[in-house]
Amino acid sequence: MPGIEVVGFDGDDTLWQSEAAFALTHERFRAMLAGHVPAEELDRRLLDVERANLALYGYGVKAFTLSLVETAIEVTAGTITAVEIAAILEAGKELLAHPVELLPGAADAVRAAVDAGYRVMVVTKGDLFHQESKVARSGLGELVHGVEVVAEKDVATYRRILQRVGAPPEQFCMVGNAPRSDIAPVLHLGGWAVHVPHALTWELERHDDEEALVRHPRYRRVESLCELPALLAALV
Amino acid sequence: MPGIEVVGFDGDDTLWQSEAAFALTHERFRAMLAGHVPAEELDRRLLDVERANLALYGYGVKAFTLSLVETAIEVTAGTITAVEIAAILEAGKELLAHPVELLPGAADAVRAAVDAGYRVMVVTKGDLFHQESKVARSGLGELVHGVEVVAEKDVATYRRILQRVGAPPEQFCMVGNAPRSDIAPVLHLGGWAVHVPHALTWELERHDDEEALVRHPRYRRVESLCELPALLAALV
Repeated sequence: MPGIEVVGFDGDDTLWQSEAAFALTHERFRAMLAGHVPAEELDRRLLDVERANLALYGYGVKAFTLSLVETAIEVTAGTITAVEIAAILEAGKELLAHPVELLPGAADAVRAAVDAGYRVMVVTKGDLFHQESKVARSGLGELVHGVEVVAEKDVATYRRILQRVGAPPEQFCMVGNAPRSDIAPVLHLGGWAVHVPHALTWELERHDDEEALVRHPRYRRVESLCELPALLAALV
Repeated sequence: MPGIEVVGFDGDDTLWQSEAAFALTHERFRAMLAGHVPAEELDRRLLDVERANLALYGYGVKAFTLSLVETAIEVTAGTITAVEIAAILEAGKELLAHPVELLPGAADAVRAAVDAGYRVMVVTKGDLFHQESKVARSGLGELVHGVEVVAEKDVATYRRILQRVGAPPEQFCMVGNAPRSDIAPVLHLGGWAVHVPHALTWELERHDDEEALVRHPRYRRVESLCELPALLAALV
């Protein structure tokens, strides 16, 4: 039985920090609207707006910024000022320009996978422009064999990527933090998945039945990417 | 000498209408702010904001919507109301949900290129999520061999795409309306380019030296995609 040939790395919160910067912006948003609505209600309303906008906006900072503005107008019943809305736009821009901070072991894990002879890809979701900018700023773009920025990480997307690289699912291993996007669809296809949990995972990235994923024979879990090289070598 | 092997079609304003819907939204924006600033000044300020945001936002409707909100706040010196800003957000959503209207001859030209044995791709720029949605809604996604949504259509991007499909530039022909994105970089690489001018072309899509492009030996021009099949057959 042939072993793993292709290794895919998720970007946000797997190779580099992402949700932490979103959380900081979210904090500022809460502070800005503290006089209008309790924090828990604000969070709930924002999540409702984000969920409603997902099919139209997709993922990423621009979608998030637009949802923040919409939520702010809604929860203040239109009394928020244009100056406050300008501050939200500014916070969105800062989020886009936020430096790319690699997670512990990320660069070494990518380098080790390349050196071990795997074809290595970054498979990342969200805003194309921003993701390409983050790949470039991460310094990892030069190391890997390919970068796929996709609109949605579902079974159809992974099937298309594997057809494109010419590898069957059993020779593919995806490494990522998000059960719904990085783990479940790859296991479903017949591939391997290494879960690297991140302290912060966006509500809409949870998976309904994470228990079942963990029991899957091709599921693995590491606490940090530092453990990945040894795990990949032992996988098959 | 081998002929054309791969044909790339631009999406927005080549296969389907795009700028017309942006223009309509722009009209509504002008009407909304007519009491604050003359139309010409508003257009200039909006273009300045869009240009300044390009490196951070990239292309697409979400970027446009965010720039509209920013411009509206600026030109009204912060006196625009949240209710008016909500109307701008709503206009952006309508633009995203706008039906995909194929241009004359588009479906036939794609089908004819496939039937003639070319590998056919859609190479489109902008928001990944929205572009994929438009390809799907156009009905052309099933016909073609590949879809590339890219953040920027420059020489490096076309070089990467051609490497991926394994074709040298002289066997590639790009079909599109935008001199700066569809024509100039492909000619520069050594490929062929068929210009299908569209009545509306965004200011930032013009090319500094369109005269020079027109004189290029591998430049062709058709008034509509209806003329494309015959032109491709005669190219080499």
